[in-house]
Amino acid sequence: MARPKLQIALDHNTLEDALKDSYQVGDIVDIIEVGTILCLQAGSLAISCLRSLYPDKIIVADTKCADAGGTVAKNVAEAGADWMTAICCATLPTMAAAQKEVKALQVELYGDWTFEQAQDWRKLGIDQVIYHQSRDALLAGETWGPKDLTKVAQLIEMGFDVSVTGGLTVASLNLFKDLPVATFITGRGITASPDPKGAALAFKAEIQKIWGE
Amino acid sequence: MARPKLQIALDHNTLEDALKDSYQVGDIVDIIEVGTILCLQAGSLAISCLRSLYPDKIIVADTKCADAGGTVAKNVAEAGADWMTAICCATLPTMAAAQKEVKALQVELYGDWTFEQAQDWRKLGIDQVIYHQSRDALLAGETWGPKDLTKVAQLIEMGFDVSVTGGLTVASLNLFKDLPVATFITGRGITASPDPKGAALAFKAEIQKIWGE
Repeated sequence: MARPKLQIALDHNTLEDALKDSYQVGDIVDIIEVGTILCLQAGSLAISCLRSLYPDKIIVADTKCADAGGTVAKNVAEAGADWMTAICCATLPTMAAAQKEVKALQVELYGDWTFEQAQDWRKLGIDQVIYHQSRDALLAGETWGPKDLTKVAQLIEMGFDVSVTGGLTVASLNLFKDLPVATFITGRGITASPDPKGAALAFKAEIQKIWGE
Repeated sequence: MARPKLQIALDHNTLEDALKDSYQVGDIVDIIEVGTILCLQAGSLAISCLRSLYPDKIIVADTKCADAGGTVAKNVAEAGADWMTAICCATLPTMAAAQKEVKALQVELYGDWTFEQAQDWRKLGIDQVIYHQSRDALLAGETWGPKDLTKVAQLIEMGFDVSVTGGLTVASLNLFKDLPVATFITGRGITASPDPKGAALAFKAEIQKIWGE
């Protein structure tokens, strides 16, 4: 089983704070995400600054795009993003338009979506999805469970690279040990730590321990 | 029937272009929208600049928020937005969290949504929705029709203030003449005109002609 990648979600309220944390963990992680909050606060400057600092990392713009896919994708690609996200309730024309402009479009699975829709995304050539526990749902007490793992497995069987995110801890990674998860995404699991670099190294070590070097 | 408001969607790729158009039509329209593209390009600076220029207008941040509702809402409110948008597939906890931080949360109706969900939004106290023809769907050849008008009427009956948007022209406003639409939103209907000010005045005059002063 391929080793899952580690993605840091930089979802700070200011570019300054995001850059500060990126400086500590940017060389450790595989993928740097410009989170939705940061995109909305700092605009494309957040993407271009992180591209400038980390020319060799995959950069994702977590725009959660719902419309005007072509324009949003062109803009984030120009700023330096490799990948961007669309929300699962975006229409197929929106996703198709976005997909033309970026190296990969990732569909974020939120709220109500169906495997029938997922099949439509595959038909468009989309091969990345993000299985998500909503931050607000987590705050409301919902947690990871067998129903999540079953859905993740089914998406992988459909041919998706599945990124997993939402309230992940180092200890929770073992839940996914039988699945070829593509990427684990964590934001505050690293950035809210008193030692972000240590937290990123701990995530990476646990991934290597479970899935191998 | 109350006269529908006119909202300009500033969905430019640069703050400079958005400010240029706002300067021509800001005093004519009722509501100024910082569009999704502009939010993602210029960040909260777009909101704060437009608030500074138009202290007495309603300003909407079209974030199409799908998660982290509380944080996104707090941020846009701090930058000067009165209202913000959430995407219809956002979870109820996300919407509830957002709603606490802004004067009004507007749910954008995209892709698959149901009147049962709309009832849940009403129960949260949300009383604004945006009935939307996706830009990409319009480009793919879909247009306004009776099925749209029926849905808009049903949403109004449920107690929502309904904003209507997507490919509107001055000529198309008459389609809605029997409905107490809350707001007509247009972006390129005004900004793509060689005479944005004239276009905004034409929209306003047609609204007044149909719904009265």
